[in-house]
Amino acid sequence: MRTQEILNRAKAAVPGISALDSETKDRAIYAMAESLTAAAEDILAANSLDVEAARGHISEVMIDRLSLSAGRIEAMADGMRQVAELPDPVWNGLGKLERPDGLVIEKVSVPIGVVAIIYESRPNVTSDAAVLSFKSGNVCVLRSGKEAWRSANAIVKALRAGLKSLGLNEDYIQLVEDTTRESARELMTASGYVDLLIPRGGAGLIRSCVENATVPCIETGTGICHVYVDSSADLEMAANIIENAKTSRPSVCNAQEVCLIHSDVADTFLPMLKRRLVDERTENGKTPVELRLDKRAAGVIEGKAAGAEDFDTEFLDYILAVKVVDSLEEAVEHIGRHSTHHSDAIVTRDDAAADKFLRGVDSAAVYVNASTRFTDGGEFGLGCEMGISTQKLHARGPMGLRELTTYKYVVRGHGNVR
Amino acid sequence: MRTQEILNRAKAAVPGISALDSETKDRAIYAMAESLTAAAEDILAANSLDVEAARGHISEVMIDRLSLSAGRIEAMADGMRQVAELPDPVWNGLGKLERPDGLVIEKVSVPIGVVAIIYESRPNVTSDAAVLSFKSGNVCVLRSGKEAWRSANAIVKALRAGLKSLGLNEDYIQLVEDTTRESARELMTASGYVDLLIPRGGAGLIRSCVENATVPCIETGTGICHVYVDSSADLEMAANIIENAKTSRPSVCNAQEVCLIHSDVADTFLPMLKRRLVDERTENGKTPVELRLDKRAAGVIEGKAAGAEDFDTEFLDYILAVKVVDSLEEAVEHIGRHSTHHSDAIVTRDDAAADKFLRGVDSAAVYVNASTRFTDGGEFGLGCEMGISTQKLHARGPMGLRELTTYKYVVRGHGNVR
Repeated sequence: MRTQEILNRAKAAVPGISALDSETKDRAIYAMAESLTAAAEDILAANSLDVEAARGHISEVMIDRLSLSAGRIEAMADGMRQVAELPDPVWNGLGKLERPDGLVIEKVSVPIGVVAIIYESRPNVTSDAAVLSFKSGNVCVLRSGKEAWRSANAIVKALRAGLKSLGLNEDYIQLVEDTTRESARELMTASGYVDLLIPRGGAGLIRSCVENATVPCIETGTGICHVYVDSSADLEMAANIIENAKTSRPSVCNAQEVCLIHSDVADTFLPMLKRRLVDERTENGKTPVELRLDKRAAGVIEGKAAGAEDFDTEFLDYILAVKVVDSLEEAVEHIGRHSTHHSDAIVTRDDAAADKFLRGVDSAAVYVNASTRFTDGGEFGLGCEMGISTQKLHARGPMGLRELTTYKYVVRGHGNVR
Repeated sequence: MRTQEILNRAKAAVPGISALDSETKDRAIYAMAESLTAAAEDILAANSLDVEAARGHISEVMIDRLSLSAGRIEAMADGMRQVAELPDPVWNGLGKLERPDGLVIEKVSVPIGVVAIIYESRPNVTSDAAVLSFKSGNVCVLRSGKEAWRSANAIVKALRAGLKSLGLNEDYIQLVEDTTRESARELMTASGYVDLLIPRGGAGLIRSCVENATVPCIETGTGICHVYVDSSADLEMAANIIENAKTSRPSVCNAQEVCLIHSDVADTFLPMLKRRLVDERTENGKTPVELRLDKRAAGVIEGKAAGAEDFDTEFLDYILAVKVVDSLEEAVEHIGRHSTHHSDAIVTRDDAAADKFLRGVDSAAVYVNASTRFTDGGEFGLGCEMGISTQKLHARGPMGLRELTTYKYVVRGHGNVR
């Protein structure tokens, strides 16, 4: 089917999905989850073809992201059932005003309409994005990367079968068939058809969407996250937090990429950092972290010299850029210039310094004495996540169900005029 | 000053303004209001030059919008003082979660950063936009239309003098000096400098911003508003509401442009409508409304034949397009295709019909038995208004102070790792 035809069908399905009641939606999610596990064989077959075709063309890490197993499919179905258990984000009262003339003005949450999601090679994004869109009353138009298209198609087929089994419109969940760049461009410029575009993937994809989209677009995911070790920091705590933020899962967007250290504690802390991230990890058979040091840090410990670009790179790897600063202000200023406004932390024992950092750093999540790794829909109590917004309009930080809704004013009168 | 230099200064002023406490901001607003009235003579002189230069080039309505008087300047200053009295929208708690491991996650409202406002010839937008931006902790970059630039410049000079009188940074309020299209284009594409762009003006300006902006932009103002008269409507009430929605102020965006009438009541209601909007208004020396009738309506009463474009036109004048429909569903469907998603109303005595309309019509404000003219920040209890958003992301409907903020997550731990 042509992409424009898919968009026509998506738009036509909006009134139907937005009128579904909570119970029907939740029953449908359970039916889709069941349909997904029932189709496991077909999905795995499609996935093998994807993996076979991709092998040799993409890295082993990417192959792992692409590969499905019976267990992974079961986990996807479980994730869907968890979303069914969350409260319905639609038609919730957000405020109410009764005027002296009896006019009653209510602010009510409503679905956005058609949500397009452009993603890459992780097949589980297909079911995640579909169920979050569905639960929030939105029609989704999914555009999977070429490498994962067969898998995505098999998954969408199963989900649509689940909808059909309850007599619901299959068009609530759509997959774009064209995997060339042209279809991505079509979604980005589908004014009047796409109400919200969410790119999920690497920095290149996100930049392309932000630059080329004429439909509303939410920038997600890129994270150049900082941990600043203040002069008053508990240095043992700082080392713990940094090891966690850097190494617990280096490939995710809330992992730390840059460490800033106050010059007062640099002589003490830098050797601790090296011992913790390099020496001890090597001794214990763990992957050591490659430290990329600015001039002052390189005067204290051994490591690779950092280039300027190292403070503007999302490594997503066991690499940490390290810089010595002379003040909290310099740290805040550095973060302002280099951060992607995702998650940044200070380690300090000084409440005033903490407060200055929390107010001065303009990121989706700002931390005192905790790891940046907590920035996540599940950890933040949203129950699920469509992505992490690094921009400021509409949604910031983890986007759960509520962030996939908008609102309208419902006004009831008895002939009121102005 | 070059526009890019103004943007540099705006960006540099962000940390300062976002750190101001409520009391300082309110004192500054009073000082700016005082400075504005003190500068009345200079402002009026600048405004005379604007009016003189514009006369002959723009319509008399536009000349009236452009013209200032001592009274209008006093009203602008009063409007500013009213904003000072509103609660500070910044650093409000929007939610809090304490996790079992003691990590405390708070969601807190914060300023957006640099807000650019591109507007046309109404000088009072200058002080309105400046005070709303300032109170919400944002640096504003104002770009006035050419015709009103001298007036805008005199107003901004006064406001900046007010800031200076308290020792505050004048750069919190900036006016672009270049009034060519080039400066508008620069603002629309100032990624990394402009956090939010708000166009305020005619449909052409807004379309240009939406199509060309690479910075986040909020579509405002265009209103093709409908009133649907249901088969069960109190017809006297319907006539009252329509006269109010159409004629109380035809030039504003919440005025009605289209009337839909259920065929069951068309024979009774159309003559009532003509009597009310045409005959009685003519008899009483009021401007009569020009009715533009679809075929079926033209079979019942006299009036001009409506062309197809009349159902897609924001007349902003004493003109009303009229169409007969056979059902509520047809009305909702027509509104879905032709509305600008601003404000639409149903007149009905049937609760089920009202509910169907309220849920089915996807507009910022949906009304039962009341005039569309209520869609306004003041009427909706926001206290003020930067414009009315007709899109769905971030802010919908009237935008007050809260809609000029975003939020961030403030997370406090004691060494928590994941």
